[in-house]
Amino acid sequence: MSLLKDFDQKHSAALGHELHRFARELYPICRSITGDGLRRTLAMIQDRIPVQLAELPTGTPVFDWTVPKEWNIHDAFIKPADGRRVADFQKSNLHVLNYSIPVHAKMLLHELKPHLFTIPEKPDWIPYRTSYYKEDWGFCLSHNQMLALEEGQYEVCIDSTLAPGHLTYGECYLPGRRTDEVLISCHACHPSLANDNLSGLTVATHLAQFLSGQDLHYSYRFLFIPGTIGAIAWLARNQSNAQRVRHGLVLTCIGDAGRFHYKKSRRGNAEIDRAVFDVLNHHTELPEFLEFSPYGYDERQYCSPGFNLPVGCLMRSVWGSFPEYHTSADNLDFIQPARLAESLRVCVAIFDVLENNRCYRNLNPYCEPQLGKRGLYRPTGGEAIRAELNARLWVLNLSDGEHTLLDIAERSLLPFSAIRDAADLLFQSGLVAVFSGEDKDTKTSPHSTSAAAIGAARRSRP
Amino acid sequence: MSLLKDFDQKHSAALGHELHRFARELYPICRSITGDGLRRTLAMIQDRIPVQLAELPTGTPVFDWTVPKEWNIHDAFIKPADGRRVADFQKSNLHVLNYSIPVHAKMLLHELKPHLFTIPEKPDWIPYRTSYYKEDWGFCLSHNQMLALEEGQYEVCIDSTLAPGHLTYGECYLPGRRTDEVLISCHACHPSLANDNLSGLTVATHLAQFLSGQDLHYSYRFLFIPGTIGAIAWLARNQSNAQRVRHGLVLTCIGDAGRFHYKKSRRGNAEIDRAVFDVLNHHTELPEFLEFSPYGYDERQYCSPGFNLPVGCLMRSVWGSFPEYHTSADNLDFIQPARLAESLRVCVAIFDVLENNRCYRNLNPYCEPQLGKRGLYRPTGGEAIRAELNARLWVLNLSDGEHTLLDIAERSLLPFSAIRDAADLLFQSGLVAVFSGEDKDTKTSPHSTSAAAIGAARRSRP
Amino acid sequence: MSLLKDFDQKHSAALGHELHRFARELYPICRSITGDGLRRTLAMIQDRIPVQLAELPTGTPVFDWTVPKEWNIHDAFIKPADGRRVADFQKSNLHVLNYSIPVHAKMLLHELKPHLFTIPEKPDWIPYRTSYYKEDWGFCLSHNQMLALEEGQYEVCIDSTLAPGHLTYGECYLPGRRTDEVLISCHACHPSLANDNLSGLTVATHLAQFLSGQDLHYSYRFLFIPGTIGAIAWLARNQSNAQRVRHGLVLTCIGDAGRFHYKKSRRGNAEIDRAVFDVLNHHTELPEFLEFSPYGYDERQYCSPGFNLPVGCLMRSVWGSFPEYHTSADNLDFIQPARLAESLRVCVAIFDVLENNRCYRNLNPYCEPQLGKRGLYRPTGGEAIRAELNARLWVLNLSDGEHTLLDIAERSLLPFSAIRDAADLLFQSGLVAVFSGEDKDTKTSPHSTSAAAIGAARRSRP
Repeated sequence: MSLLKDFDQKHSAALGHELHRFARELYPICRSITGDGLRRTLAMIQDRIPVQLAELPTGTPVFDWTVPKEWNIHDAFIKPADGRRVADFQKSNLHVLNYSIPVHAKMLLHELKPHLFTIPEKPDWIPYRTSYYKEDWGFCLSHNQMLALEEGQYEVCIDSTLAPGHLTYGECYLPGRRTDEVLISCHACHPSLANDNLSGLTVATHLAQFLSGQDLHYSYRFLFIPGTIGAIAWLARNQSNAQRVRHGLVLTCIGDAGRFHYKKSRRGNAEIDRAVFDVLNHHTELPEFLEFSPYGYDERQYCSPGFNLPVGCLMRSVWGSFPEYHTSADNLDFIQPARLAESLRVCVAIFDVLENNRCYRNLNPYCEPQLGKRGLYRPTGGEAIRAELNARLWVLNLSDGEHTLLDIAERSLLPFSAIRDAADLLFQSGLVAVFSGEDKDTKTSPHSTSAAAIGAARRSRP
Repeated sequence: MSLLKDFDQKHSAALGHELHRFARELYPICRSITGDGLRRTLAMIQDRIPVQLAELPTGTPVFDWTVPKEWNIHDAFIKPADGRRVADFQKSNLHVLNYSIPVHAKMLLHELKPHLFTIPEKPDWIPYRTSYYKEDWGFCLSHNQMLALEEGQYEVCIDSTLAPGHLTYGECYLPGRRTDEVLISCHACHPSLANDNLSGLTVATHLAQFLSGQDLHYSYRFLFIPGTIGAIAWLARNQSNAQRVRHGLVLTCIGDAGRFHYKKSRRGNAEIDRAVFDVLNHHTELPEFLEFSPYGYDERQYCSPGFNLPVGCLMRSVWGSFPEYHTSADNLDFIQPARLAESLRVCVAIFDVLENNRCYRNLNPYCEPQLGKRGLYRPTGGEAIRAELNARLWVLNLSDGEHTLLDIAERSLLPFSAIRDAADLLFQSGLVAVFSGEDKDTKTSPHSTSAAAIGAARRSRP
Repeated sequence: MSLLKDFDQKHSAALGHELHRFARELYPICRSITGDGLRRTLAMIQDRIPVQLAELPTGTPVFDWTVPKEWNIHDAFIKPADGRRVADFQKSNLHVLNYSIPVHAKMLLHELKPHLFTIPEKPDWIPYRTSYYKEDWGFCLSHNQMLALEEGQYEVCIDSTLAPGHLTYGECYLPGRRTDEVLISCHACHPSLANDNLSGLTVATHLAQFLSGQDLHYSYRFLFIPGTIGAIAWLARNQSNAQRVRHGLVLTCIGDAGRFHYKKSRRGNAEIDRAVFDVLNHHTELPEFLEFSPYGYDERQYCSPGFNLPVGCLMRSVWGSFPEYHTSADNLDFIQPARLAESLRVCVAIFDVLENNRCYRNLNPYCEPQLGKRGLYRPTGGEAIRAELNARLWVLNLSDGEHTLLDIAERSLLPFSAIRDAADLLFQSGLVAVFSGEDKDTKTSPHSTSAAAIGAARRSRP
């Protein structure tokens, strides 16, 4: 069964617009790492897929951390003498320093200024800033707005609450034939930011929708969580179950027009890393692969040394490296329907590799079987070899119980999909059998041809 | 004892012409995977070296295959109304689709055309085509010949027989001090094709002639076989003995003017792969090394997963990649006396590495021995080091029982021949001893410095 | 404790001049592999650091070698009919072939000529030549000097003695908390040659001076020895103790203006190799790393197969590759105060890595600890990551008991010093503990991330 073929049959060009429409609905909500904006977001995801909510009270210890107070906000503005509202929360929720404590006061410009954040190099953009773990207040505004502020007194209002409450996150679990899990994690804590936040949420939601109709080898767990503290909370509550995670992806910044970037798991050569390598190389243009580092999104937590889960991070443009990152320019125009749809398809292709990466055994291991009498060979000698035949010969040659289909794809330099199709055909012809032995083993065989070895092999010197 | 030095003493420039003369004698014969053309070819090889013939009856099962009917041919032509013979088998045996069933009929041009094969891009060349396992008939002719055929009726004659008979192959075994074998395999089933077929046959025959006069460490087995079915038949009849094959080469397309190409064994880093790497790099210009793939010549069978023998394929131009391949242009002009002779010498050099790749033990492992007092050092300090001294120091430094001479050659970047000469000298001086222990072990020690490690080392970063 | 920070506090720009002044004092002495010149040199080192002398009588067997006769020289010259002194030993001790037997005779120019050595390509330079193990006599002079010699009779005088005596070497041992040793070896047998000989002697002497005031993890052993025979003699007398050498450096040619070159130990990836790699890459410009070869300085003996000690060779310009090598142009102008001082500092930095390369254990291995509440994180989100934070996250992520700080530096691409500083800070904050278990193990753990693996990882493909 091919997830990707099924996906391609079911989905048309309209898919990208559906994803973008969902992002547009989510965009105005003022999310944070706690609070009603986050709850509203999860509720809108629940309209589409079954999501179970968790609520952890303020003060709950989660490893070295503590669940913070809950933050909610209703309004915020700066009002000069003329009565206009500047940095008006109603116009953009980015205007308020996220997690600002309440304030309502009058003050002179020089008293206000230390609480104002701008981007001088991008004078029309509003920055996005937070202060979760140090109580503070502030406003983010465009540099030009700030320059226009005249000396004088200002009314400053942040109508927020920061009080005992809960940390909320959502979880969507799709059971497969195994309890071994694929983890998909995305953060849901950023206010009106489209690529950083909404692209992951919308793609993950549709992924879950698509997978829920499939007969799955693995179980799939989708986490919609506030960044850092949410991942830490989930891991703290699932410390022993976490080892069921056999493969994982953090999805973020996957709606913009950039080419794909994949940050490898801490292990560096896990099956997820190799599956993504195959899919991005064969299905996308000029992908880039980044080594693991301990800074980034929630892979930081999944890959902490106590867990060391095989979780990588799939992006298009890399956080922090595009100018729109954490500014008002990361808006609905910055993400594109076709890009969202392509990212979704890439994820399906990755899962298709994971679902089908089994080990076969050549039932005629001594010399080649006669493909011609089974209609699997070209009828007349002398022509250039066709790629399909090549894939069949590779599967036969390496199906010795030691190589998975992904191993074979890597060594043959052919796409996994071509190798899988060849294996299906050979299986139907009775030439290969699924390698018996523990299924678990066939999925985790210590690959004799690691990617590193393959890299060396490609250089073509003995 | 150096095979190569002995070879160079015995052979002059005349050798290439001798090889080419033999190819010329073999050229006109219409060979196929069975039949009298193949038998005649083997008989001519028997005039030079002792070859034992095997004859397997049609219908004999060999693994997944069955020995096919025997094919013989006496004449074939197309005759237009004017009575000329077109596509005349007497002029070129390539004109008949190899393994054509008999046919004698009159037909119109449009009935004939589906049975004609040409190469539109090379309008003067006759293609070589076969149909071994699907009964069919046809003619191969130049595209210009075909274009000149006018509408009308044609007499079509293929005077062949396809009937129960035998599959024939030849085997020349040269016993050495060990029963461990070096396998040399070449196909003998192509009709008038020079590089693809005759170059391998002539070089292999002369190799056997040369080796038969030598005191050999290994036994050598030369197979002159029809492609695919012959290799499969030999392996089926020698399934258990095949494990005696410690090193092997398929020889093909080694008479043209191209530089050397070596396709590695499935193992990729077998001793034969490393020996060929040393010899081609140090004795030839710009050699290329190709990764194993399961498509190609009979290495496909030797390297099938049930056998996985360390057999590579030595070529000059690579089959399928030069325009003359499988056409009438692969003729006696396409192969050159000097190239045949050089290919033969390269094979001797490769066997020279295999024969002499032993492990020595430095008898003074603590500090350097004093080479000067034995006349093995330069007498006065201050000059540039000579390469010979360097080779001696490398042999002393790495003769710790863990490194073969080939390991030392790889790490020192010196040719195997220089390392072997140094080891001989040190042995004569009593400074090293042949590493005792099972000889078998010394020849197959799991090399701590694999070629991959060497590759890394050459990049010169710790 | 950081050796390097302490060094930088104590030493100013004057250091280079101090080193150069010491070289100037040592320069005029006529050293050889035995004799009073060598003894005088060791005595001048003893004025600065505690050196123990060893004297081995002529004839003493040391492995495959024998301690030679002792050589001393008082005068040497060639006197033409006009009574001038040509090739006057009093003007340069290079004029005499080192280890020349005594000679006092009259002879014609053509009889003298076979005993004259010059460098035609550098007609004003005197070569340095030796004949230790073959009794001979000769003179080295500039090519122009030789061309000026007219036909006629010459008085030839070498007032030397070659007679039973002793081989002398010096040893300075600085005990640390462990008996495991760091070996620093330099040769002291060259006459008036500055870079090749004196640069190593002066830097090693000052290194010992600096280290003697420190609280050291390892013990340090400095050898001031005649080349080859001295290293062999020391190893012969310390055969079993030699295994205490955990890291070693041969220091030579480290005073000239060239960039650094490091020749790796025979092991190729020993901790010393990796420490030098880190220091040269992060502290110096464009360093080069050379693979081990069995020719060179005394690393030849330390890395002989019976010992295989982890000893590399640190140089600036590589012996034999600069024109001044082994000529009168390798003089006091060829070495520069600032270069000597930089070489000394590089050695201190290398030892700083070795002394501090321990293994830590993250005490909060599940998810990241909250750095912010400890003042170890930036207070406000949204800014570019600072390198210090990055180092802290890497130490936390890889302090799993399997990675030393050097492993972490290699994988993170950060300098060891940055990783060490981060580890100190985390230790002070109670976030990491020194990995308990055998100290020996923590210092020699078989690193899962070898430099080779790191090299592969840097290429950034899974």
